[in-house]
Amino acid sequence: MKAVRVHEYDTVPTLDDVPVPAVRDPHDVVVKVRGAGVCRTDLHIIEGQWKGKSGVRLPYTIGHENAGTVTEIGSAVTNVKVGDSVILHPLATCGLCLSCRNGDDVHCTHSDFPGIDADGGMAEYLRTSARSVVTLDPGLEPADVAALADAGLTAYHAARKAAEILRPGHTVAVIGAGGLGHIGVQVLESLTAARIVVVDQSPEALELAKQIGADVTVIADGNEAREVLGLTGGNGAEVVLDFVGEGTAIAAGVAMLRRAGSYFVIGYGGNLDVPTIDIISSEINFIGNLVGTYNDLVELMALAAEGKVRLHTVKYRFSNFRQALDDLHHGRVRGRAVLVPDDEFDGQRGTLDSAPRA
Amino acid sequence: MKAVRVHEYDTVPTLDDVPVPAVRDPHDVVVKVRGAGVCRTDLHIIEGQWKGKSGVRLPYTIGHENAGTVTEIGSAVTNVKVGDSVILHPLATCGLCLSCRNGDDVHCTHSDFPGIDADGGMAEYLRTSARSVVTLDPGLEPADVAALADAGLTAYHAARKAAEILRPGHTVAVIGAGGLGHIGVQVLESLTAARIVVVDQSPEALELAKQIGADVTVIADGNEAREVLGLTGGNGAEVVLDFVGEGTAIAAGVAMLRRAGSYFVIGYGGNLDVPTIDIISSEINFIGNLVGTYNDLVELMALAAEGKVRLHTVKYRFSNFRQALDDLHHGRVRGRAVLVPDDEFDGQRGTLDSAPRA
Amino acid sequence: MKAVRVHEYDTVPTLDDVPVPAVRDPHDVVVKVRGAGVCRTDLHIIEGQWKGKSGVRLPYTIGHENAGTVTEIGSAVTNVKVGDSVILHPLATCGLCLSCRNGDDVHCTHSDFPGIDADGGMAEYLRTSARSVVTLDPGLEPADVAALADAGLTAYHAARKAAEILRPGHTVAVIGAGGLGHIGVQVLESLTAARIVVVDQSPEALELAKQIGADVTVIADGNEAREVLGLTGGNGAEVVLDFVGEGTAIAAGVAMLRRAGSYFVIGYGGNLDVPTIDIISSEINFIGNLVGTYNDLVELMALAAEGKVRLHTVKYRFSNFRQALDDLHHGRVRGRAVLVPDDEFDGQRGTLDSAPRA
Amino acid sequence: MKAVRVHEYDTVPTLDDVPVPAVRDPHDVVVKVRGAGVCRTDLHIIEGQWKGKSGVRLPYTIGHENAGTVTEIGSAVTNVKVGDSVILHPLATCGLCLSCRNGDDVHCTHSDFPGIDADGGMAEYLRTSARSVVTLDPGLEPADVAALADAGLTAYHAARKAAEILRPGHTVAVIGAGGLGHIGVQVLESLTAARIVVVDQSPEALELAKQIGADVTVIADGNEAREVLGLTGGNGAEVVLDFVGEGTAIAAGVAMLRRAGSYFVIGYGGNLDVPTIDIISSEINFIGNLVGTYNDLVELMALAAEGKVRLHTVKYRFSNFRQALDDLHHGRVRGRAVLVPDDEFDGQRGTLDSAPRA
Repeated sequence: MKAVRVHEYDTVPTLDDVPVPAVRDPHDVVVKVRGAGVCRTDLHIIEGQWKGKSGVRLPYTIGHENAGTVTEIGSAVTNVKVGDSVILHPLATCGLCLSCRNGDDVHCTHSDFPGIDADGGMAEYLRTSARSVVTLDPGLEPADVAALADAGLTAYHAARKAAEILRPGHTVAVIGAGGLGHIGVQVLESLTAARIVVVDQSPEALELAKQIGADVTVIADGNEAREVLGLTGGNGAEVVLDFVGEGTAIAAGVAMLRRAGSYFVIGYGGNLDVPTIDIISSEINFIGNLVGTYNDLVELMALAAEGKVRLHTVKYRFSNFRQALDDLHHGRVRGRAVLVPDDEFDGQRGTLDSAPRA
Repeated sequence: MKAVRVHEYDTVPTLDDVPVPAVRDPHDVVVKVRGAGVCRTDLHIIEGQWKGKSGVRLPYTIGHENAGTVTEIGSAVTNVKVGDSVILHPLATCGLCLSCRNGDDVHCTHSDFPGIDADGGMAEYLRTSARSVVTLDPGLEPADVAALADAGLTAYHAARKAAEILRPGHTVAVIGAGGLGHIGVQVLESLTAARIVVVDQSPEALELAKQIGADVTVIADGNEAREVLGLTGGNGAEVVLDFVGEGTAIAAGVAMLRRAGSYFVIGYGGNLDVPTIDIISSEINFIGNLVGTYNDLVELMALAAEGKVRLHTVKYRFSNFRQALDDLHHGRVRGRAVLVPDDEFDGQRGTLDSAPRA
Repeated sequence: MKAVRVHEYDTVPTLDDVPVPAVRDPHDVVVKVRGAGVCRTDLHIIEGQWKGKSGVRLPYTIGHENAGTVTEIGSAVTNVKVGDSVILHPLATCGLCLSCRNGDDVHCTHSDFPGIDADGGMAEYLRTSARSVVTLDPGLEPADVAALADAGLTAYHAARKAAEILRPGHTVAVIGAGGLGHIGVQVLESLTAARIVVVDQSPEALELAKQIGADVTVIADGNEAREVLGLTGGNGAEVVLDFVGEGTAIAAGVAMLRRAGSYFVIGYGGNLDVPTIDIISSEINFIGNLVGTYNDLVELMALAAEGKVRLHTVKYRFSNFRQALDDLHHGRVRGRAVLVPDDEFDGQRGTLDSAPRA
Repeated sequence: MKAVRVHEYDTVPTLDDVPVPAVRDPHDVVVKVRGAGVCRTDLHIIEGQWKGKSGVRLPYTIGHENAGTVTEIGSAVTNVKVGDSVILHPLATCGLCLSCRNGDDVHCTHSDFPGIDADGGMAEYLRTSARSVVTLDPGLEPADVAALADAGLTAYHAARKAAEILRPGHTVAVIGAGGLGHIGVQVLESLTAARIVVVDQSPEALELAKQIGADVTVIADGNEAREVLGLTGGNGAEVVLDFVGEGTAIAAGVAMLRRAGSYFVIGYGGNLDVPTIDIISSEINFIGNLVGTYNDLVELMALAAEGKVRLHTVKYRFSNFRQALDDLHHGRVRGRAVLVPDDEFDGQRGTLDSAPRA
């Protein structure tokens, strides 16, 4: 079969012929890939930015946002059968450590991250574990949801945790209405009745945010904290979801947080730098957020099946992967780029017309 | 190796020669059994009471409370190694269903219950899964804790859930200070600062309860609800843990429950029969409790390692299993009977001098 | 001023002249009543059914679902000012007992229930406490929301608690789509992404349920449990909200509950009668529900202000209260009957065209 | 009566004659002060450090840690009666705002802080509100617990929140075993079965920590993070309680935190400065902590009544308040200094022989 493999850093990957994977262990599942998201992380891998962290040996197959059809299962697999449409959780987890046993598999002490530190899913077939596959509702096309497997899952995870706090009459401020924030707003709209205030530097992003659930939008021009305070009687938002995590966003986000409020850190790049006296005198919390759990992905797919979370995707023929990487690199992709098998390419776009920024 | 097998219902099991189990699948673990609890359920199995429910084919090996030493592991096992002392969770769970993925493995949709519906642990060796083994602290002897694997785990599960509600100044009423209640009191004493009121018909059981953590004891003579109301200014207990679940215990338990209180159903046999007007006007809750999860067992073993939960055990030579069954049948066992390998039998009793009723 | 007072049981109340109430204590608030719900409980009071329970001395003013405009406040009142539109929480609570201090004011140990055991709000003015008034959004008319103060609040309370458990992909079964169930469905639709299955004996009630959020409706014809099991792959619903609480509804509701599921008791009249073995083997919970807290009412009004919870109301002139009581008694009210000041009566109906059963 | 009043900043307060306060409003309570804690904050007030923040008009009476006997109550007071021993919550809260209504009275939007921004309790009598008084168990002496009203309550609040996360087998690292940390360790010991690791720069403080519940102590010499990692198999502590909040403590505390762990900020002075990439990749949380709620104080007094939380106090005659302030200023107080009425002074110390640092 064909697979997109990195042979050397800073060099375009090649389409190699490799053996089709087969079931080896009782929990193995082989999936025909029918959607492979192309992500900025793929560009970073190719540039060598993950070289030290992943420790992966070249050549290897990239791709960490996958969905497709089950073609073979091991003897102990009970949760999917051949022919099922599935999306893959990005981590391959052990199922044995205390985190896995506690439903918190993201903190598995023995996990792999296929596409980062092991062979991934920009290939015709992929061998994974029964623990990584989530069955799709018949109404969902693998190519339409593949790109939700990582970034979308992160946004769902944070927004779902935030929803546990949010009550009718509360205000949640979402900082950053790009790819993740865009999913976050849709999740909040589905899971809470709180007022959703979206903050972004881009008027286009705010315009789109309004279409998908934002009750109020605020341009991030340096006055955003004052605006959110004004919208909340001077008290601030009960919850801030920060999808930016760098630059001036953090200070503004903290300034717009209410006493006893919670600040969800999702974006990264900068530093959280707050005097401890401010943390204790207003009794605020900072909540870290990594990618979602397996069950988070099950729930996100339930929302997707009902049309409550939609993602704009731009499809490319699998064999045309270089174009996808190139378009992404040059900012020419609105929404998310997804590779589909050449013979399934219909030239159509995804389900949401107004595209979020990648 | 030798195994205690049931060949025919209502007939004493025999000590048969069967092959030593070996690892077949990557997640398999083989354990040399060094403690096998003898439980009233074993008597019921032999009598044929579980015939219909378990659907097991005879002959098979009984025993569902086991601890021992790992002698072989499969290629995918990462949580234990050969030589580790382990206790076995009573269920063999799939790790794939939503319940397993959510940390709620007791509701696994594909579980076995070895000793009930599959070969169990009254044998020299036992093949189990990596998902069922919990490593023991070096200070714990398998034979001393084996009998906590099922009944003790149930008591821990309920008391741990109750502890989430209980605050200093609250009152928890424990109905039934037998085998399970006895563990429940020790768990409550470790996890809460609430006042523990123990209710039982037996003065001896109450006397023992005082030694292990009861703050107040109340004889169950028909006036117990009035007594508990009296102890709480007429308001009742914030939590009732009912380890009896039949006879007059239920009505008395409901009568001693405070407004907005929670009643934990653990024992069974009778009916919960309450007018819905009483449930809504006092806004009370009834909480079901099955056996604990894998992580509950990890936590219970942490308590045992610190000496915070202790169980009186009476050891028998494995080859002398008939005596153990017979003693249990005739009410001659104080605490819990445990089979140990013949060459490890030292004639000593377990760690707690005052024995609970089995 | 005029007030509707009961002088004798089983006799129509009269419109009496009584003194206008004035502020006496620092926390007192006087409200001009602009909406007074007429409830089946008022009929029961008049018939004498509450005589023993309430212990109220006749004559007294009935009415326990009120909204209006603040006309006078005491010196310690900081949460409302003269001219504010407010809805009244049905209980007058002390603010001093542990329940009040814990946000659980419904279990206040020193509360009054105006309209039941003290003078109520079928009058031109009403003296209440600052602790009972919730400010209304400017977009809400007192007469449109008054009838949410008691029954609507109960439904909100239960549905909000249930929403804490419900995740995307879960199923919640709502038994009874009458007045309370109708509000419950709207609340669930706002606070969760779970699938809402509504069960009722009336095809009309089910038809209305579909318009306000039910994903699936099931006629209660004796097969409803089997139907819900069928809709959930044989597993049952994660949550059942029982707004009936009597007759065959309870057994059917328990039968359609999933393992580890929770059954919310809201309606009443019958008995909850379940073998304890069933409670523990499936580890199910029964959760009592009384009326909502003050903060629940704040949240319900936030939902109402956004149009997410709507109630069909039929307005009557205050002086025409006998007609309202009579219409209610003879089943001629679709939705809820509300008395409004004679000079504010516009003959218009409330906001929701399709009326739930009272 | 006599009262300790500040007339001018940077000048020793004087013992003035002022009128005995009397009940004015229905919720007022007058208390004869029988214990008034002398706190470092009192020194700061006298030095003028709170001048700007409190905005209080001089002269005024200081003292914010009080306990005593009720001598008069207003007409609406139902929770205490004349003659009751009480401790005072440090805040006088409104009972009307959403925070008060939600049990989170510390975030009351209309609160006073007597002794800081209003007349306090270094006086013979004090007028307070029914909302601020907690009845003491008959076994507790006001003078012995007065000093728990503020600092002790803060420690309880944080440790109680932490206890909700901590399970048997978990590790909690307590940084700082001074006055607050000392109470925190006792609370953790009462509410959890987690392993308590105490970190401090002082060997004496660690020695005392061992006596009151620390399972392990670690000297804060720059290697403390490495030591805690070593104690936890390299994983770190599930919870860190930081009672220092400045200097090197913060970086060390973050370094000893486990993936998905929670860091409770209690002490203050420095900055929390953490890269957002570290917060998200390990998914850690930072939880702010202010003083405890009214119900927290009720619970802390329940622990004190059982002897589970004890404080070393040094008593001074009320008229000798200058000596107490002077001793505190010069570091001559071991434990907490408390003023008692001259005629109740017995020269005895408090209940715990080994004194924590003030």
